[in-house]
Amino acid sequence: MTQLTKNIPRVVIVGGGFGGLNAAKALANSPVKVIIIDRANYHLFQPLLYQVATASLSAEQITAPIRGILNTQKNTEVLMTSVNAVDTNARIVHTDNGEIPYDYLILATGATYSFFGHDEWKKYAHGLKTIEDALEVRSKILAAYEFAELAKTEDEKNAWLTFVIVGGGPTGVEMSGQIAEMAHTTLKRDFKHINPSKTRVTIVEAGERILSSFHPSLSEKASKYLKDFGVEILNNTPVIDMDAFGVTLKDGLRIPSRTVIWAAGNSASPAGNWIGAEMDKAGRVKVTPSLTVPGHDNIYVIGDTASLAQDGKQLPGVAQVAMQMGVYSARCIRAHVNNQNPPPPFRYFNKGDMAAVGRKFAVYDVEKLETPSGKRITGPIRIAGITAWLMWLTIHITFLIDYANRIFVLLSWMNSYFTNQRSARLIPSKVKEESLPNQNCSLKTSSDP
Amino acid sequence: MTQLTKNIPRVVIVGGGFGGLNAAKALANSPVKVIIIDRANYHLFQPLLYQVATASLSAEQITAPIRGILNTQKNTEVLMTSVNAVDTNARIVHTDNGEIPYDYLILATGATYSFFGHDEWKKYAHGLKTIEDALEVRSKILAAYEFAELAKTEDEKNAWLTFVIVGGGPTGVEMSGQIAEMAHTTLKRDFKHINPSKTRVTIVEAGERILSSFHPSLSEKASKYLKDFGVEILNNTPVIDMDAFGVTLKDGLRIPSRTVIWAAGNSASPAGNWIGAEMDKAGRVKVTPSLTVPGHDNIYVIGDTASLAQDGKQLPGVAQVAMQMGVYSARCIRAHVNNQNPPPPFRYFNKGDMAAVGRKFAVYDVEKLETPSGKRITGPIRIAGITAWLMWLTIHITFLIDYANRIFVLLSWMNSYFTNQRSARLIPSKVKEESLPNQNCSLKTSSDP
Repeated sequence: MTQLTKNIPRVVIVGGGFGGLNAAKALANSPVKVIIIDRANYHLFQPLLYQVATASLSAEQITAPIRGILNTQKNTEVLMTSVNAVDTNARIVHTDNGEIPYDYLILATGATYSFFGHDEWKKYAHGLKTIEDALEVRSKILAAYEFAELAKTEDEKNAWLTFVIVGGGPTGVEMSGQIAEMAHTTLKRDFKHINPSKTRVTIVEAGERILSSFHPSLSEKASKYLKDFGVEILNNTPVIDMDAFGVTLKDGLRIPSRTVIWAAGNSASPAGNWIGAEMDKAGRVKVTPSLTVPGHDNIYVIGDTASLAQDGKQLPGVAQVAMQMGVYSARCIRAHVNNQNPPPPFRYFNKGDMAAVGRKFAVYDVEKLETPSGKRITGPIRIAGITAWLMWLTIHITFLIDYANRIFVLLSWMNSYFTNQRSARLIPSKVKEESLPNQNCSLKTSSDP
Repeated sequence: MTQLTKNIPRVVIVGGGFGGLNAAKALANSPVKVIIIDRANYHLFQPLLYQVATASLSAEQITAPIRGILNTQKNTEVLMTSVNAVDTNARIVHTDNGEIPYDYLILATGATYSFFGHDEWKKYAHGLKTIEDALEVRSKILAAYEFAELAKTEDEKNAWLTFVIVGGGPTGVEMSGQIAEMAHTTLKRDFKHINPSKTRVTIVEAGERILSSFHPSLSEKASKYLKDFGVEILNNTPVIDMDAFGVTLKDGLRIPSRTVIWAAGNSASPAGNWIGAEMDKAGRVKVTPSLTVPGHDNIYVIGDTASLAQDGKQLPGVAQVAMQMGVYSARCIRAHVNNQNPPPPFRYFNKGDMAAVGRKFAVYDVEKLETPSGKRITGPIRIAGITAWLMWLTIHITFLIDYANRIFVLLSWMNSYFTNQRSARLIPSKVKEESLPNQNCSLKTSSDP
């Protein structure tokens, strides 16, 4: 038990993602008691989630127990439970396991995917936000080849070998590159009745180009790389309908496909509703430049749950923003507790955006590199190719939490790189039974001699 | 497509475990077409399953895709589907995806656990046969500590910190050692309201000693090692009842516990029913000394599904037996196809039995080492301690399929060994929600200052 007295302020952090975890760490030596709450027992390194979904990494390699990360922080307690409501008057967080009073509250609950009003698509299109999502997508993709192998008609076979990716942002691009790569390398020799290299991967993008948050020249280069690799890109093509057998695009164009991956829209977690705050269309809480909620200067909202503009542009829902917001909110609380002046308004220090398009090919884009105080150093810097890929690799390894994970991820990548094998080609039967549509095919093979 | 003609005999193997996989590999260069069927897409290295259940290894590290293992075997086809029945007259296997004709059939479908007529215990006691079992047990164990941390009374806390292991065979012993080790090392510093080293681990064994398949001197040494480590061993103590809150032993002794692990009884898979064969009490098919089913000399039953005595003793359900039976059945089929003399009756060449009791401590026992033809070389050899543990380690690494898995498992062990961390402390929320009992506790912590 920690020796705390009644006078020590309590900081409750909801969410153990990039934002919440960095807030907790930044409060390690502050005169506060920190309580971090998460539904899960682990921190997830979300930028590599797509590699779990494509059998390159295991879930264990990109997660680390929150307790383990924070167990040397004497003033910090970790609780695995779910938050249901917040009473801002009584300053109490209501959880599945009782009430938790707070003096300061940091809401870092992240985002989920949004189907733009088409919630009926949820059962056909698979999003990629949680470990469970990733494992389900992995099972879907691997099982699609098994079902293709068993299919009795060419049409069925082709529908199983067609993967539609809705949304051409970094996740959509990364998924398409990985599926194409797996089809052309890992699975090449594994089947008798299908040719995995005939896999069709299509990115369906409603906007006019993929990677729209990057400079057009990088979108162009990424598109060229993907097309050379066999990935089809349909720009200006909104999805208008989908079912278990395919998607319908504008103009009624139909792509028969048994596997649809949703990489299109995000919507914030319901934290805004808990505190009755004003939210934007995507459900994010509109925060002050100090990341507090208007009217509640002891409540911070950070990361994907926060809506804030900088230099006239909405800050993106990326790990970097969440991490910096976490550290900033901790700084504000520390200043307040110590009766010091509050720090200047939050300013996102953008070190650049990256997307790994394929093996040995990534894009890196930064409009301008600036000092933390906002002074321009250089820019723009725009790179596409192997240099950006090596940068991507170094940064992702470095930022992985837990040194063992770093070694395992690096070794998995080396193994994939040199042998074309993937270390996580597992379809756990539970996932399979729950999530795969009933398929109706017979063993053409069996009657062969 | 393979160039096979109508005249090439078809060998259908059901099951991709140790038996089935070794049969398939042994038929690589035989003039037959091999079709191997499994419900899952992977081969599981079952002897290390308990390490997945105790968060030391990930599921991916002890599995390998069956297709990947066999993809260089030109005469072999892999099908992921379920078998429902066998028509021995028409020589057809009925699957979820259609009919598969065979000339030779090898049934290698393994075993499941048996609750000795108490199927109502299934929802409280968790067996350990599949990857899904292991992941569920892992979630149970890790979540027990989370719930203990949240528990409001000492009694609740203690019930969450008590683990009852039913059955003192190798699996029960290995599980108890791992849980005790995790409690004393990995989790030591991670909680504020409980002391994980107060974990109570109890092996409940109905027979007169643990590790009854080993020599009594080794049971003795293993018991001493476990007791020194805090594991409680109750011999001659059958379980007479259990519910979500604990187990009741003979004489009415009650152990309050929220986590019960079932390592007691096995029962064979239903393959015997498919072919209407004579079975023993445990559901195993009584096979001839050539591993065929009486009356069906083209049907082989191998591994945990087969019942066969050697020198008056029932062969045990271990990987070694299954592997040798797989190779033997392939040899018989090859001889038959080539019109050669059948091999002599199957003889199990026992290289010794092992169990890893704890860190740096294993037991190894072989009554006599003999040549494949049954000639005694030496014996008995009985070792307990670090030498046996190093043997255990070397053998398990060597026999793991897939060289990448070998490296990853070895590194995971080194990491655990030197840092006391475990690389797989993940509670996927899906498993959690499905499998954990509703627990009713409030945050005592939250009202603390």
